[in-house]
This record gives sequence, structure tokens and C-alpha cells, in this order.
Amino acid sequence: MKRLFGGVEGGGTSSNVVLIAEDGTIVAKADGPSTNHWGMSLSGGEQEEAIGRLVQQLRDRYPNLSEKYHITTDAIGGIATATNRGGIVLISGTGSNCKLVNPDGLVIGCGGWGHLLGDEGSAYWISHLAIKTVFDATDNFKHTPYNISLVQEAMYNYFQISNRMDFLTHLYRSFEKSKIAGFCRVLAKVANSGDALSCSVFRRAGQELAQHVVAVMPGADKVLFEGELGLPIICVGSVWNSWDLLKDGFLEVLSEARQSRMGKQLTKFSLMKLTQPSAVGAASLGARHVGYDLPMHYTDNVMIFYTHCFGTQ
Amino acid sequence: MKRLFGGVEGGGTSSNVVLIAEDGTIVAKADGPSTNHWGMSLSGGEQEEAIGRLVQQLRDRYPNLSEKYHITTDAIGGIATATNRGGIVLISGTGSNCKLVNPDGLVIGCGGWGHLLGDEGSAYWISHLAIKTVFDATDNFKHTPYNISLVQEAMYNYFQISNRMDFLTHLYRSFEKSKIAGFCRVLAKVANSGDALSCSVFRRAGQELAQHVVAVMPGADKVLFEGELGLPIICVGSVWNSWDLLKDGFLEVLSEARQSRMGKQLTKFSLMKLTQPSAVGAASLGARHVGYDLPMHYTDNVMIFYTHCFGTQ
Repeated sequence: MKRLFGGVEGGGTSSNVVLIAEDGTIVAKADGPSTNHWGMSLSGGEQEEAIGRLVQQLRDRYPNLSEKYHITTDAIGGIATATNRGGIVLISGTGSNCKLVNPDGLVIGCGGWGHLLGDEGSAYWISHLAIKTVFDATDNFKHTPYNISLVQEAMYNYFQISNRMDFLTHLYRSFEKSKIAGFCRVLAKVANSGDALSCSVFRRAGQELAQHVVAVMPGADKVLFEGELGLPIICVGSVWNSWDLLKDGFLEVLSEARQSRMGKQLTKFSLMKLTQPSAVGAASLGARHVGYDLPMHYTDNVMIFYTHCFGTQ
Repeated sequence: MKRLFGGVEGGGTSSNVVLIAEDGTIVAKADGPSTNHWGMSLSGGEQEEAIGRLVQQLRDRYPNLSEKYHITTDAIGGIATATNRGGIVLISGTGSNCKLVNPDGLVIGCGGWGHLLGDEGSAYWISHLAIKTVFDATDNFKHTPYNISLVQEAMYNYFQISNRMDFLTHLYRSFEKSKIAGFCRVLAKVANSGDALSCSVFRRAGQELAQHVVAVMPGADKVLFEGELGLPIICVGSVWNSWDLLKDGFLEVLSEARQSRMGKQLTKFSLMKLTQPSAVGAASLGARHVGYDLPMHYTDNVMIFYTHCFGTQ
């Protein structure tokens, strides 16, 4: 009997599934809505008890679905799609999360705590920061050097509201994380039209995302810095479509980190996107879990979109 | 027929009700659980549509309860308990909120947007900041100069958890704002035992609370600064029980604000607590709404706990 390996990527806004044959051929793909059990980037795949319950539910409800299950956090699926030699995966979709995977498989994480405790640099975070800036400026509570009118107008249009008070319904009574995160797409347009406040919010997001990299870097095996591409950073999630808006803040924080002893190793880094869903990597992890090495065409699964060399100082 | 005036104060953690006779005598008092419709400091009493629905529900369900209704935000009930000459009410309980009421009745507000968008300096905010500091330090994400071990231990004990991941259940699956805010009481004990991290969190809360005052001050009638007590600030909510921990941060921000042209008026201020529930003021507002001036013994309703004179500069 031919074996099939399934992979599922559960995200805060959407999810996808693949089925891969023993020879590495993708035989089926499907998309679906949010499957993330916390409604956040971290798929809960790190809580043993939650994993146990989830696997049991799958066995009970669909007894013929799969022989074996392997559940881990979404970031690991992303990196397993891109490489088996380690690197950093930096997610910025609805939520955010970062994992460094060393060549020996050791994982070091930062973030992924959801919108109430983190998600820095994510679409939710970007939307929230822009909205909060409007609220605080209107309250005379916190000063902003920027004009808030374009962001406020975009916010009123997107949420179909006519005053700040009405926004509270979106935030409390009918809270949908993905609805709030969706405002980030509008903000990217406002920023690209030249609005200084939304540009500054994206720059701040770039800083926060880079800070995740700085946080995990001390745990990196030095070979990760030595490849042709420099430190490989796999960028997952739609916020990376606004790389031009994130870039300045991202470089600022990494340049500053190079001043520290630890940061000296970072002479070059490359950012890459996946051209296949993280579910592909998830399938390969599942296969490895049952002792099978699924053939992967890593170079076909990624696209390098930015490489940076730091000058000698 | 003798008239009765009812007052209700709806809070994020608990609520209270009074019935007051025409001569100002309190004839009944009762406490109850949270009645706040957003689960936050702002009681929603500023949304006309919400008010309309609420009054209609009250009429439909309890047709004989009251002839007239008047609904406003909780802060206004607090100030109406303390004075009819205007002042600032600064709430820091589960949530936070600030209103300046001028002698002519004009109201200027800051904050009160709930835990997802504000609540700065509240019990929820204090708990959250302490917990977030533990998460970020453990992640190597944001540096803290303080040792996190006592706060982390207190957090694990309070939430009955054994690792950070377990905390997510409290934050997402079984979220209770008042449960998280309740951790603030524990933090006050830890701070009072000398822990530097929790002390710094309360100092930060003091800064945020003072920032609310700074935000509304430009709208204050100058007579509010000229009374014997200086600017009267009515402090509502249990976080004020930790005034000794808030004090340094609070004074820092007000001292700094005095450097501005607007802040010069602030030569003296007094903090006072209510010795009667805000529901008393709510009843008097209700009475005024139907054209009756309920006799109030304002001096019996407040207790001054701190007065500060700024030196001449």
C-alpha cells in the first residue's frame, strides 16, 4: 500500500492542508477558515495536554483519517518547508511568532503569545497601534508628532463607524481578531500613499519583528551565519507583503544589535518567502515522526526577496 | 407620596445600589456583581443607542421600577458624590477612566476604553504589565533591569500554573478580566515586601494615572485650581489603596507637566477618596435630571488622603 502524508497549517485567519505521496509529489491541496484553537499565531501545539486532547478528538471523530499524528507549533512547519538545515522562521500574519531551529533540531522561540500578550509586529498589532494612536491623540493622552486624520478616516470607513465609541463594539461585543487584523491591509495602502502616521506604525512593526530575531540569535549555531545567504530568515504571513514599509525599522534594530558581542556574527542575512504552504513542511515533519524521510525540493519551496550585507565597521 | 431616588454604580468587578429619600437620607444599600456591559470601566453610558436600549429593557422587564431613568458614565457618578462644584475623578479599579467636570457642568474625558485599548494604570493594566515583563524577559525579547523571579513565582501561585504556556488558558479560553485584575492585589504585597520589579510597575501606573490628569487639565476652568485644596482629584477604585506605591510616578508626571504653560496653574492638588459609594452621586444626578435638588452632605462623602504643594520654581 502506498503511504500518504498529510500536513495541516492552522492559522488565525485561514488554514491549509496538503496530501503528499511517498515520492514527495503533492497530490492534493485545500484551503479553509481559521483553525487556530487560541485564535492566535501559536497553534497551541506546545501544550502537551492540549495536544493529547486534540489527537484523541481526531481519533474519536475520524477513526480512519490517519494512523499517526504529530502536532507542533506553526513556525516549525514553516521552517520545515524551507530547509532541513535550520534557520529562523519569523511569522507575521494575523499574529506573530518566531522560532530559531538549529541544524541539530534544537528550537529557541520568542513571542507567539497572542493579541493579549504579544503579537508584536503582526497585522493585529499594526492595526491596534494605529487605532490606539488615534484614540490617545484625540484624548490628549499621548502625544503623536503625526497627523491622525487619514488613519482615522480609514478606520471609520473600514469598521463602518462614525465615532470612537462605536469602535468598542468591534473590540468587545463582536470581537474578531481577523477583522481587526484586516485593517492592516488598508493601513498599508494609506502608508503607500505617503501618510506619515501609518508609515511610522509599519516602521515600528519592522523594529518589533527584528527584535524577535535579536532575541533568538544568541542561541544560534554559528554555522547558521556562515552559509552563502547569511542568516536565513523565512518570512511567513501576509504582513511581509509590505516589506518596503517594514524595512527601515527592521534594519535599524539589526544594525544596533551588531554593536553587541553576540551580534557581531551577523554579517549578512537573507529574507525568504515560502512558495508552498507551511502544510508541506508539516507533512514532512509528520513523515519524519514515523521514521520516513519525505523527499523535499527545498529550493523550489522558497523565494529569496531580500539580502543584506552589513558593512565592516 | 414621598419620592425615592435610586442610584446604581456598575463596575467591572462589583456594583452597588442605593435608595435615597427626598431629604437626602440613604434608606437602602446593596452590593452586587459586575454589571458593566463591556466588562470595563466605561459603563457604556455615553452611547446614546445603548442607553436607549438599556432604558427600554428596564421599562419592559420592570414596569414599576422607576418613573424616569438617567444613565451616564461611572466617573460622573463618582464626582457627583463628592462635589457639585466640579473637579477631576480618576478611576483606577479593574479598569481606569478619568473625567474632568467643570463648575458649569462641561465634561472632558480621557481614557476608559477598556483592557484592549487602554485601562492604563488600572489593576488589569498593572497585572498585565508585570506578567508581560516576565514573558518578555524569559523570551529575551525586551530587557528588564529587574529580577523577575518573585513576580513570576507570585503569578504561578495566583493562577495555579506551572509554566507560561498554562497562563494562556486564563488569558484566552477562560478570560476573566477581574481574575487578572485581582493579581494586582498580590503584586502590591510583593512590592511592599521590597521587590523592585513590582515597585517599578506601580510607579509606571502612577505615571499613567497622572497622565490622565495632564490630558484633561487644559480644559479645566481656572477656579478649579483656586480652592483651598488646590485641584480636587477624586480617586475611585481599589488601586488607590496602594497610593504609597503609585506616588513617585504620579508626582513625577505632574511635576513635569508644570514646566508647560498650561501646567503652571497647578500649584496644589488634593487626592480624596469617597466614603460613600458612587451610587449616591448617581442618585443625585438622577434627581437633578427630573428637576429635584437632592440634599447632599458632600464633606461627609469624601476623605482627603493626600495634599501636595509644588514649590515655587
